[in-house]
Amino acid sequence: MPSEQEIISTLEKVTTATLTTLLLKKGLRNVWMRGTRPISPGYPRIVGKAFTLRFVPAREDLATPESWSKPSSTRAAIEAMPEGCICVADAMGVKDAGIFGDILCARMKKRGVAALITDGVVRDIAGVRGTKLPVWCQGAAAPPSVAGLTFVNWGEPIGCGGVAVFPDDWVVVDDDGAVLIPAAFIDEICSTAPEQERLEGWIMSEVENGHVLPGLYPPNAENKARYEKTKK
Amino acid sequence: MPSEQEIISTLEKVTTATLTTLLLKKGLRNVWMRGTRPISPGYPRIVGKAFTLRFVPAREDLATPESWSKPSSTRAAIEAMPEGCICVADAMGVKDAGIFGDILCARMKKRGVAALITDGVVRDIAGVRGTKLPVWCQGAAAPPSVAGLTFVNWGEPIGCGGVAVFPDDWVVVDDDGAVLIPAAFIDEICSTAPEQERLEGWIMSEVENGHVLPGLYPPNAENKARYEKTKK
Amino acid sequence: MPSEQEIISTLEKVTTATLTTLLLKKGLRNVWMRGTRPISPGYPRIVGKAFTLRFVPAREDLATPESWSKPSSTRAAIEAMPEGCICVADAMGVKDAGIFGDILCARMKKRGVAALITDGVVRDIAGVRGTKLPVWCQGAAAPPSVAGLTFVNWGEPIGCGGVAVFPDDWVVVDDDGAVLIPAAFIDEICSTAPEQERLEGWIMSEVENGHVLPGLYPPNAENKARYEKTKK
Amino acid sequence: MPSEQEIISTLEKVTTATLTTLLLKKGLRNVWMRGTRPISPGYPRIVGKAFTLRFVPAREDLATPESWSKPSSTRAAIEAMPEGCICVADAMGVKDAGIFGDILCARMKKRGVAALITDGVVRDIAGVRGTKLPVWCQGAAAPPSVAGLTFVNWGEPIGCGGVAVFPDDWVVVDDDGAVLIPAAFIDEICSTAPEQERLEGWIMSEVENGHVLPGLYPPNAENKARYEKTKK
Amino acid sequence: MPSEQEIISTLEKVTTATLTTLLLKKGLRNVWMRGTRPISPGYPRIVGKAFTLRFVPAREDLATPESWSKPSSTRAAIEAMPEGCICVADAMGVKDAGIFGDILCARMKKRGVAALITDGVVRDIAGVRGTKLPVWCQGAAAPPSVAGLTFVNWGEPIGCGGVAVFPDDWVVVDDDGAVLIPAAFIDEICSTAPEQERLEGWIMSEVENGHVLPGLYPPNAENKARYEKTKK
Amino acid sequence: MPSEQEIISTLEKVTTATLTTLLLKKGLRNVWMRGTRPISPGYPRIVGKAFTLRFVPAREDLATPESWSKPSSTRAAIEAMPEGCICVADAMGVKDAGIFGDILCARMKKRGVAALITDGVVRDIAGVRGTKLPVWCQGAAAPPSVAGLTFVNWGEPIGCGGVAVFPDDWVVVDDDGAVLIPAAFIDEICSTAPEQERLEGWIMSEVENGHVLPGLYPPNAENKARYEKTKK
Repeated sequence: MPSEQEIISTLEKVTTATLTTLLLKKGLRNVWMRGTRPISPGYPRIVGKAFTLRFVPAREDLATPESWSKPSSTRAAIEAMPEGCICVADAMGVKDAGIFGDILCARMKKRGVAALITDGVVRDIAGVRGTKLPVWCQGAAAPPSVAGLTFVNWGEPIGCGGVAVFPDDWVVVDDDGAVLIPAAFIDEICSTAPEQERLEGWIMSEVENGHVLPGLYPPNAENKARYEKTKK
Repeated sequence: MPSEQEIISTLEKVTTATLTTLLLKKGLRNVWMRGTRPISPGYPRIVGKAFTLRFVPAREDLATPESWSKPSSTRAAIEAMPEGCICVADAMGVKDAGIFGDILCARMKKRGVAALITDGVVRDIAGVRGTKLPVWCQGAAAPPSVAGLTFVNWGEPIGCGGVAVFPDDWVVVDDDGAVLIPAAFIDEICSTAPEQERLEGWIMSEVENGHVLPGLYPPNAENKARYEKTKK
Repeated sequence: MPSEQEIISTLEKVTTATLTTLLLKKGLRNVWMRGTRPISPGYPRIVGKAFTLRFVPAREDLATPESWSKPSSTRAAIEAMPEGCICVADAMGVKDAGIFGDILCARMKKRGVAALITDGVVRDIAGVRGTKLPVWCQGAAAPPSVAGLTFVNWGEPIGCGGVAVFPDDWVVVDDDGAVLIPAAFIDEICSTAPEQERLEGWIMSEVENGHVLPGLYPPNAENKARYEKTKK
Repeated sequence: MPSEQEIISTLEKVTTATLTTLLLKKGLRNVWMRGTRPISPGYPRIVGKAFTLRFVPAREDLATPESWSKPSSTRAAIEAMPEGCICVADAMGVKDAGIFGDILCARMKKRGVAALITDGVVRDIAGVRGTKLPVWCQGAAAPPSVAGLTFVNWGEPIGCGGVAVFPDDWVVVDDDGAVLIPAAFIDEICSTAPEQERLEGWIMSEVENGHVLPGLYPPNAENKARYEKTKK
Repeated sequence: MPSEQEIISTLEKVTTATLTTLLLKKGLRNVWMRGTRPISPGYPRIVGKAFTLRFVPAREDLATPESWSKPSSTRAAIEAMPEGCICVADAMGVKDAGIFGDILCARMKKRGVAALITDGVVRDIAGVRGTKLPVWCQGAAAPPSVAGLTFVNWGEPIGCGGVAVFPDDWVVVDDDGAVLIPAAFIDEICSTAPEQERLEGWIMSEVENGHVLPGLYPPNAENKARYEKTKK
Repeated sequence: MPSEQEIISTLEKVTTATLTTLLLKKGLRNVWMRGTRPISPGYPRIVGKAFTLRFVPAREDLATPESWSKPSSTRAAIEAMPEGCICVADAMGVKDAGIFGDILCARMKKRGVAALITDGVVRDIAGVRGTKLPVWCQGAAAPPSVAGLTFVNWGEPIGCGGVAVFPDDWVVVDDDGAVLIPAAFIDEICSTAPEQERLEGWIMSEVENGHVLPGLYPPNAENKARYEKTKK
């Protein structure tokens, strides 16, 4: 069983495209969080354990600027985030109220949060970019969270972009968006993913050499044998 | 402060249209649960306290027929429902997996649940209609809940049809769908709603007598005076 | 040029399906108002001139119960509706705020309005059905118009269900929904529609007699000749 | 291996809700055609082999009334439909152009087509209801198919309501909509479905007798034994 | 009461995120125009009075290239735009027809229009970028406006991205999109916004110094006092 | 009749905005493929004949990694693509499964495919960008095609972004997306497009000189005469 650090260093070298293929082979077709796009170019691939946030729709008596001072506010949630976690926020896909702006993202960055993922949007996107916190979301909206959302709690099972996320699960994000790896699958994925990446790298080099696709991708017996030879 | 039974008997005589108008005057514009339509004609207006259910998206390792035997299943939730409650289920608007079918609805009816409200759908709709449990939802779909949903818990804050619902809140349903009354507002609504209904009834009778709308609805000073006289 | 009464009595006998086919042959493909469904079964086909209403989105400073007393309110609009008109309301497809309830519809019925058409919804649908005003819309919602809409004006060009409607245009509604006939096309449609209906009736009777479709619908020369004989 | 007639008489007694549960247990979660609702109440459950139709979007040079006379028109497709088939039409979910009206449906009824299923809509819905052809679809629209669709071919693999349908597959429709059973699964489904229905019937009777759900649905060992006894 | 120039120079220094928070505190939750994104990076924040344009859906007899020569065309609208205005166009969210291309945008730039905002799209986006007119919209589409839209008028109340915009209102746009400030609120917003920005700047610097969020944002009495000291 | 090479070199100089205007004047309003955006900046305009691919929804028994080895797989389709073609893939607008990743795109580039157009998305977008194959689509998703799509065939009529595409048709793509030119219209478009571009260039230069729009765009008789003079 790999350590958390081994998981991270292993999966940082595996594309989310490869991970979804491996998870599909294990019967999991619904692990990619829809609407999670990087807000800046050039982020590295990031791997971490999910720290979940949950919102419900706004209600004028609950979703108020005053609610920001409550003990169970988003502010308290941020102070509970462990270093290295990936914050995954269930914003129910709401695109017209930003869950966080520059100040909250700056604090998350200070606390060592690895990334923020949401099926909603952020606000003050210029400021958020300035904090250098890596963010994957649906874009930006000026209004505060309370214009559309009521914060409920952290550390609960949530949905994000149509995917079930539980507090123990792992998340990998790159240019293709955020992929969930259920905690129960992490060991197996870590043990099979590097070999799959190596094989795909060999196939790519064959394509660059002019090889045709049928029989190569996926490889038939002959090509498998050729590939195996390259590993010696 | 009215008793629960007084609340029920008061609000059974008030349309959800009137209730939303009163709540809007208190600053609450987002209290109507979108997509909640009766599955059969002729239900009476129903009033009750919300008993909430929460689903997240399906994940093939969690959303299985086996999960139906778990301690925290929908089955256990139903056994926890108090008589007279209105069950409000957050199905995230999913329309291609039925949250409940005839067997679960029959048990809810047996337990005295007043109504089932969801922003999702039911399955085996012919059987569900047969149980006589009043249901407001988006329609029917054949697949089981686990084809699209993972059940999480009951008794939590949820969203339903874009409205925040907390376990203490009140719900009223009629042909216009389901309206939420936050627990903190129930007394005031109970004290103002009957008079508003009486006024609207008088306005309607005036319209039937051929009265023009401007000055009547809402009434100007003259018409208010005429209305007040009718109350003596 | 037919009189308004002749237009009405002619088109009352022509299905909206036939009218859209004729308009398509004139180059008009976008004349059916999406989302316009009857709220009660059994309405007759209704024909009338469009009286337009226009809403924009709600803004809390404008869309208030107080606005109902303004000179340019929906109330004033109703008093301006001529007998026999078809009221067509641009609600921008908003489905969570009812444009009108029972009182306004009762007044429209009193004034002799032929029908209400909207791409939005009505409220207090039980009461609206009780007024006997024929209504085509997307269904019902409890909240008042001001929860989602700001009324602007009447008698302007509008969009309704994705169709441009100008005050001079004609509207025909039946179980298939509402179809617009631009004022400039009404004479030609009135002169060609009855013959098209007659032909389709003959084709239907041929199908009932077991005739195959190719060559019959549309008819080839031989079948056209057979049909022409039936007219003598 | 059951005959086609045995398949039909077996599955006519099994709800689509039960069929989707059985198919999910075989790994098939996506077999229910979204948007397929009956246009009239009271249809019996219908079982048949899929006869597929395919449309692509309308293009003004192709989608014309003249195209109705072409050899590969919808008219020719109807004449190719075998008795007892269920016609499944891929209308890409288009809701503003009716794929068929009363004349085409009347001919389908004449030819013994068992039902018409589409993720689109029909037109002249009053006339279509009059033909007595059972139809499951998204509702009605007045415009002809060519206002939004170009007919391509019949007998091809299609998508309908988000489900892949191949010409050899089976379809079952009831009040919950249309469910696909891939040809390769039909024997197994036929052999397991009746027992599942019997078990669910017994569970329902237990619920009516006041039995609690946990341990009953699905049944634990004790309840399974009780159920088995009832079969002797 | 500030002059127009003072309004502009004040609000150019205030983020739309701050403005929406201030407006929400005044009871206005719906002031951010959905779908308004900059088409090029690096625009400054822009402030101006709204000049409105209104479109309805395309109808083939009205939405023609010939309509571009009419007196009430988009061409005439552009010639009526005052220097420094922000043009806000209600395209009903249509994304498959560009409201304007390079030529019209070039003319707007020449006339000194400050920015173009729409919930629709532009066409010839490379050319539009070349004109240097700042544009916020949903992206680009090749087809001309008349493929999907009929121009109606300028200077009317409109909806844009779900927000009501009246000719007298103010608009501020930055990377978070376009925010409406109703004319009646502009003085108060101008008087409170700079202080709110100053406070947020101080909070941000505190976060950068490692301060925790609860009690800081929003500030409790102690932190408020600390902040007040910094202002002396 | 121009040769294929002449068509290409002619249309490479004509914007898709101009092409859609010309096609609209011929009665074709629906030729722009919705959702086709370049995945990298700076592509040149590309012209080619359509090579079509067709997908239907995923079914777990068909859409498997094993299917990639079938004779009618996407791999075989790629080997059938002629040099210079534009591959147009009907992904039914599915955005949560990438139709192709880096390996397939690398092979297409090797084979001389001019561009890939789809109403779906690609996966491993960083890798796809690396192949230098020009791609227009809706963005990126990590999951493999089989997570959401079943490949059916190539060389068939398809829909892409709401547009009918037949194997003989021409496609032009630039920053405004992909436009279809039906094969039957290509000669006429080639003969009229260059003059239209020249005219628009002249109008643009007039605008830059400060000319007002009415009478200029489109040009009235006087301006047409001025323009004609410039051509001598």
